[in-house]
Amino acid sequence: MTDYVRPDIAVMSGYVPGEQPPPGKYVKLNTNENPYPPSPAVSRAIAEAVQSGLSRYPDPLCTAFRLRAADVLGVPPDWILCGNGSDDILTIVTRTLVGQGELLRLPYPSYVLYRTLADIQGARYEQVHFDAHWGLTAEFARVVPDLKLVFLANPNSPSGTMVSREQILELAARLHCPLLVDEAYADFADTNCMDLVAQNPKIMVSRTLSKSYALAGLRFGFVVAHPSLIAEFAKVKDSYNCDALAIAGATAAIGDQAWLLDNRRRVLATRARMAQLMRELGFAVEPSQANFIWCTHPERPLQPVYEKLKANHVLVRYMNYPEWGEGLRISVGTDEQVDACATLLKVILNDGAHGTN
Amino acid sequence: MTDYVRPDIAVMSGYVPGEQPPPGKYVKLNTNENPYPPSPAVSRAIAEAVQSGLSRYPDPLCTAFRLRAADVLGVPPDWILCGNGSDDILTIVTRTLVGQGELLRLPYPSYVLYRTLADIQGARYEQVHFDAHWGLTAEFARVVPDLKLVFLANPNSPSGTMVSREQILELAARLHCPLLVDEAYADFADTNCMDLVAQNPKIMVSRTLSKSYALAGLRFGFVVAHPSLIAEFAKVKDSYNCDALAIAGATAAIGDQAWLLDNRRRVLATRARMAQLMRELGFAVEPSQANFIWCTHPERPLQPVYEKLKANHVLVRYMNYPEWGEGLRISVGTDEQVDACATLLKVILNDGAHGTN
Repeated sequence: MTDYVRPDIAVMSGYVPGEQPPPGKYVKLNTNENPYPPSPAVSRAIAEAVQSGLSRYPDPLCTAFRLRAADVLGVPPDWILCGNGSDDILTIVTRTLVGQGELLRLPYPSYVLYRTLADIQGARYEQVHFDAHWGLTAEFARVVPDLKLVFLANPNSPSGTMVSREQILELAARLHCPLLVDEAYADFADTNCMDLVAQNPKIMVSRTLSKSYALAGLRFGFVVAHPSLIAEFAKVKDSYNCDALAIAGATAAIGDQAWLLDNRRRVLATRARMAQLMRELGFAVEPSQANFIWCTHPERPLQPVYEKLKANHVLVRYMNYPEWGEGLRISVGTDEQVDACATLLKVILNDGAHGTN
Repeated sequence: MTDYVRPDIAVMSGYVPGEQPPPGKYVKLNTNENPYPPSPAVSRAIAEAVQSGLSRYPDPLCTAFRLRAADVLGVPPDWILCGNGSDDILTIVTRTLVGQGELLRLPYPSYVLYRTLADIQGARYEQVHFDAHWGLTAEFARVVPDLKLVFLANPNSPSGTMVSREQILELAARLHCPLLVDEAYADFADTNCMDLVAQNPKIMVSRTLSKSYALAGLRFGFVVAHPSLIAEFAKVKDSYNCDALAIAGATAAIGDQAWLLDNRRRVLATRARMAQLMRELGFAVEPSQANFIWCTHPERPLQPVYEKLKANHVLVRYMNYPEWGEGLRISVGTDEQVDACATLLKVILNDGAHGTN
């Protein structure tokens, strides 16, 4: 049957999302979910939306969310387009801007899905390596034919590092195509690029409610861009891409900024503790602006460490990037989860050092 | 900014979903929503899903739904792929099978979104006209170069008519590419093609929970196809395209077949009354296998009729198909809604006949 499939798709291996834990109790620190429940306003809003009925189509424009988000973010509502998670947003942006055979630019190492989106679209991509300190090189701003879209995760995954606002502005000024700043983790960072969209219409900013609003299960994200681009994205998105419950829940979530600040404070406190614990265990830890930390080790191979953590019901993300190297990306959990992970790591690393395992 | 956009997208006008009613109380018979609330099991399942938490990513494979649906439909679970509404399914299938510049075949008149999906993909489409009785012509089965996918809404919209199972089998046997039988309305019909998927792997069947399960607000659809095609579709869909609440609600809905049968019985009873009322008003009404009826009029132009209905807070769908003709597609509402619509139509048609408006 694969004879019927586009060659671009048939050769793809497909994006593999972070593994789901097998049955049993796991400390899950592998997909950057928030360890705390969302704002209580969310469940109330969902219950009300269920009550007012599910038999009608939802608002295709997510007006309630856009009005609330516009207030919170200080951007006009018609600069916002909502999606079924920010993956939907990345798909919509790619499909709108990049034709078959055209070029996307991606940083490396970064979010692997960008490559998958290029593949599905039948587009080409070039991966520009970060420098040794996770900074951008001049290569990233180079103008080349057919370059239609540049992705930049900021904070980046897996590193948790950021490119400065000044560099983003300069990058956008040099590029001849739009730049999507993927701010999935920006609520955990010291700065963000939201207000730069108004300074250069080539800059677009995407956000998700999965991480900082603890709503990965609800699927809601959005992009902020110049309204002339938003109008084009609207042609490409599914008419009713966000369901009535997601719209209601997301609107309530972004409306509760007190919850966000409190959650952020807790996550950042644990992040600092966690980085310290990992350094004490001999890991090199990038200073993180996200809700995870990137840990490399000067001496120890990390795949066996990941495997032993998993065998002991602690899931972290093991990454091995060709031409770059390996590391563990560990999500910021609760203090208890982080302690459990660190205690286990201590045992695993000592075991290995004494050759007893 | 539109210089940055793919030319295929820039020239598109974009799909326009059925209009949302302006503020105020409306009888809404324009987008084929179910006039009754969904199974009570749905809200219970959603409340439980909210309770068990929204901070984790949902199951990317919608396993709970697929197991339940497999039981109900008599197909193996790995023949099912779930989507964020059946529009998501139509998008996934198109992106998997049809490359830029390649060809889709669509019946005409039918669901306008098929054309939009082709446009977004940068593909070409050919519209093959139904015969005068909404039957397929030999042209629809013709083998031509680059034809990669054939869409067939069955029951069709706006007509509510069906192509027989025998014709579908014969069509699939002749075609050199997959055939998507879009069964959005099949739960209201006397037959369907679900079991034909196992007879010819070129046949795929899509379904939605929007209409027959009264869950348009929840966004949930699925496709049943040969597992080798399902595996390719899985590469193209967003990893987490269905949210946790939609999965829970949809699983509960398809599990309540007693509700479905009862709802179907009510809708079909009203559909019969409604067709009779419309015929008494002088309309020609196609015998419908869906939850709407297609009404044409031998003498009266219908756009003014639609406008007057709307001015009186009754929304129906006015369609005018070039090279075919116009009509009103009216969703089956409650008996009260249908009576209100018919009473108003009687006044409108009489007014016009006496030239008093």
